[in-house]
Amino acid sequence: MRLHGPLEPVFVPRGFRFSAAKGGIKASGKPDLALAEAPREAAAAAVFTRNRVVAAPVVVGRGNLRRSGGRLRAVLVNSGNANCGCGVLGVRAAERCCAAVARVLGTGAARVLPSSTGIIGVPLPEGKVTAAVPGLAAALASGETALRAFGRAIMTTDLRPKLASASFGVGGRTVSLAGVAKGAGMIHPDMATMLVYLFCDVAAPAAVLRRRLKDAVSVTFNAMSVDGDTSTNDTVLLMASGASGVRLGSAGADAGFAAALRAVCASLASQIIRDGEGARHLVRLSVEGARSVDEARVVARSIANSPLVKTAWAGCDPNWGRILARVGSSGVPVDPARVSIDIGPHRVFENGRAKAFDRRAAHEVLKRPEYRVRVRLGRGRAALEYLTCDLTEEYIRINAEYST
Amino acid sequence: MRLHGPLEPVFVPRGFRFSAAKGGIKASGKPDLALAEAPREAAAAAVFTRNRVVAAPVVVGRGNLRRSGGRLRAVLVNSGNANCGCGVLGVRAAERCCAAVARVLGTGAARVLPSSTGIIGVPLPEGKVTAAVPGLAAALASGETALRAFGRAIMTTDLRPKLASASFGVGGRTVSLAGVAKGAGMIHPDMATMLVYLFCDVAAPAAVLRRRLKDAVSVTFNAMSVDGDTSTNDTVLLMASGASGVRLGSAGADAGFAAALRAVCASLASQIIRDGEGARHLVRLSVEGARSVDEARVVARSIANSPLVKTAWAGCDPNWGRILARVGSSGVPVDPARVSIDIGPHRVFENGRAKAFDRRAAHEVLKRPEYRVRVRLGRGRAALEYLTCDLTEEYIRINAEYST
Repeated sequence: MRLHGPLEPVFVPRGFRFSAAKGGIKASGKPDLALAEAPREAAAAAVFTRNRVVAAPVVVGRGNLRRSGGRLRAVLVNSGNANCGCGVLGVRAAERCCAAVARVLGTGAARVLPSSTGIIGVPLPEGKVTAAVPGLAAALASGETALRAFGRAIMTTDLRPKLASASFGVGGRTVSLAGVAKGAGMIHPDMATMLVYLFCDVAAPAAVLRRRLKDAVSVTFNAMSVDGDTSTNDTVLLMASGASGVRLGSAGADAGFAAALRAVCASLASQIIRDGEGARHLVRLSVEGARSVDEARVVARSIANSPLVKTAWAGCDPNWGRILARVGSSGVPVDPARVSIDIGPHRVFENGRAKAFDRRAAHEVLKRPEYRVRVRLGRGRAALEYLTCDLTEEYIRINAEYST
Repeated sequence: MRLHGPLEPVFVPRGFRFSAAKGGIKASGKPDLALAEAPREAAAAAVFTRNRVVAAPVVVGRGNLRRSGGRLRAVLVNSGNANCGCGVLGVRAAERCCAAVARVLGTGAARVLPSSTGIIGVPLPEGKVTAAVPGLAAALASGETALRAFGRAIMTTDLRPKLASASFGVGGRTVSLAGVAKGAGMIHPDMATMLVYLFCDVAAPAAVLRRRLKDAVSVTFNAMSVDGDTSTNDTVLLMASGASGVRLGSAGADAGFAAALRAVCASLASQIIRDGEGARHLVRLSVEGARSVDEARVVARSIANSPLVKTAWAGCDPNWGRILARVGSSGVPVDPARVSIDIGPHRVFENGRAKAFDRRAAHEVLKRPEYRVRVRLGRGRAALEYLTCDLTEEYIRINAEYST
C-alpha cells in the first residue's frame, strides 16, 4: 500500500468526476460549491455528527442514504453557510438543491447527498446554489485537477486544502482511494469530523463500507480535537464506485482496503490538526495503559480540551502538572500513584511523583512543530493516539472576529 | 440581612483572629502565608475538589477534619506552591506544617487544616513555612485589617482580593459571616472552588454546617467556570465560632444563616469570575426549562467551556449558533425545536429557528462588562444561573508564560 500526502501526485480513483464553482455564497468571492459524481452510481456509507442539533443537510443526507439503500450518484457541497438553525425551511432548501442536481444528472433526488459548512443560523441562499448547478454538472471531470478543485471549494477558515490518497494492488489490479477534508475550528468530532469525502474504486456493498468506515473513523477523526467544539454539520462520506474491478470479500482486498482507508483518514486528520486555527504545534497524545480504547479517549479528550494544557504547549512549557490535573478530572477513576507522563523522550512524572528531568531539553522538544506526549494510566492494556494542537492568541483573534 | 462587597466595611465575625506574612515562597516576595485561628475552637465543614488527583493538603485536611470531629483551631494557607504531585513527601510536609502551627497554639495537629495554591509538582519549601509560623501566631489579630491581610496573602494570579461579608439579626443578637477567596484561572470547580474561607460567629455542629455549605456551594462555586480546568487543590472551608451567642436550630437563625451564606458565596463567585484571567465580560448564563438543576448545569458547563462561544463573547459577537451547537453536544437529549436563546433582552433563536433581531443592539449588550444570556431547553421547570466569562488573548498570554 502506498500513501501520498497533499503535495504528492494523487492516486485518483476511477468511476468519479469532480467540479467546483464560485456561487457567491462566500463574501470573499472564493469557490464555495463543489460537486462529486459517480456516473455509474457508487455504494456509499457515512457517519454524521452526534450533536443533538444537526444541520439540515445532515437530516436530508441521512434520509437519502436510507431511501437509496446506500447507492449515491452525487454529493453537493457548499461552504460559507452551514444551513443550520433555520428549521424546516433549511430542510426544504437542502432538498431542493438535491433535486436540482438530480435533474441535470437524470437521477432521483434521494441519490444526491447534500453537505454544508459555514455560519450557523443564516438561511442558505438556495437560489445561488441551484443557479450554479448546471454549470457544475457541465464542468464535471475525472482526474487530479478536478479533485483538487473540489477540495479547495469546501474550505472555510482552512489555510491549506487537505488531501490524501492511497493505492494498493490485488491480483494484478490496482485500487485507488482518495480523500479530501476541510476543517480548522469547531473540531472535536463525535462520530465524524467536519467534512470529509472519501472516494474509492473498490466494489463493496454499503453495509460493508459502513463497518469499515466506522472502524477507521474511531481511531482517526474521532481521536482528534482542535477546540472541543463538536460541529452540527460533521460528515464523513465514503463512496465506492467499483470501477477498479476489485471486489471486497477476499482477504487481500479486505486487508488492503482497511489499511488504505485508515492511512488516508489518519493523514487527513493530521492535516486538519496541523491547520488548526492558530495552531503552531501538532501534539500526538498517546494515552496508554487504559482499560479500553474508549477510556483512553475520555482521558485524551480531557487533556486535549484543557485551555491550560493547550496554552502551556503554546508557551513550549513542560508544565506536566496541568496534564496531571486533567487526567484526574477526566472522570476515569485513575490511581495517581500509577500514572506516568513523558514529554518526548523525557519522563517528567512517574508513579505519582515528580521526576527530575532536563527542563531545557524538554523545552526544546516542545519547540518542535510536532511531538509526542505520552500518558500511562496503569489500569490496563488499551491505548489510543489522539491528535491535538496548542491554543494561541491567533485562535482568539480568528474566532473573536469571524462573524462580526 | 445585609451584604457587603470587597470595597465596603467588613462585618467581622467574632471568635476569630487572622494574620499574614511573607515567607519567601513566591519569587515576587509578596505575602504568601496566611493563618486564621479560632481561640476557642470552631465547628468546621469543608468541600474539596473532586479531581482524582488531589494535592497533599487536601489529603491531610480531609483526614484532620475527620479525626477532630469537625472541630478546628486554625487554617494555615500558603500561596506560590500547590504541594501537589510530590507523593508521600508532600503529605509529610503538610503534616509537619500543621504540627508547627499546633505547637505554638498549644493544640493537636488534627485541629489545623492546611491549604496550598500555586505551581504543581515543585516540593513545598517546608522549612520556609515552619520558620514563619511563630511570627504568624504572634501577629494574630481580630478585626478587618487582619482579615484583609489574610485575603491578600492567598492570591496567586488574582488581580484583586476577593472578600464579602454579611450580617443578620436574630432575637436582638447579630450574626456576622465573612468570606475570602482566591482564584482567577484553573476555575471549573467540581464540588468546590479554588480556595475559599468562610468565617461565621454562629453556633452550629459541624454536620449542620456541612449540609448548609453543600447547598450554598452547589448554586455558587459549583455554578461557575473560567476555563473548565478543575484544580487539584479546590477547597471551601466554613468555620463557625459560636461567639455571637446565636445557635442554629430556630427558624429565624436557620433562614438568616442560609441566606447570608448563599449571598456571601454568590458574591465571592462573581468576584472570582470578574477577575478571571484575561476576562473582560462577566456572563450570567441562565439555563431554564431543564428537568433538574444538574441537567441545567451540564448544559451551562458545555456552553461556558466552549472556546468558540467564549471567543465570540470576547468579540462582542451575537453568534448564537455557537451556543446552540454546544447545547446540542452537551449530552442532554434536547429537542432543538423547543430551544430558545436570548442575548440580554433580545430573543435571537426561538423554538428551533433563527429569529430576526437588532444585531447592533445585541452587540451593544455584549459590550457591557456584565450581561445575561438565557437558554430555554423546554424540557422541564428547573433552572440554574451559571457564571462565566469570555476568553481573550490576555488569557493565552498569562497561561503560556506562567511557569516558564
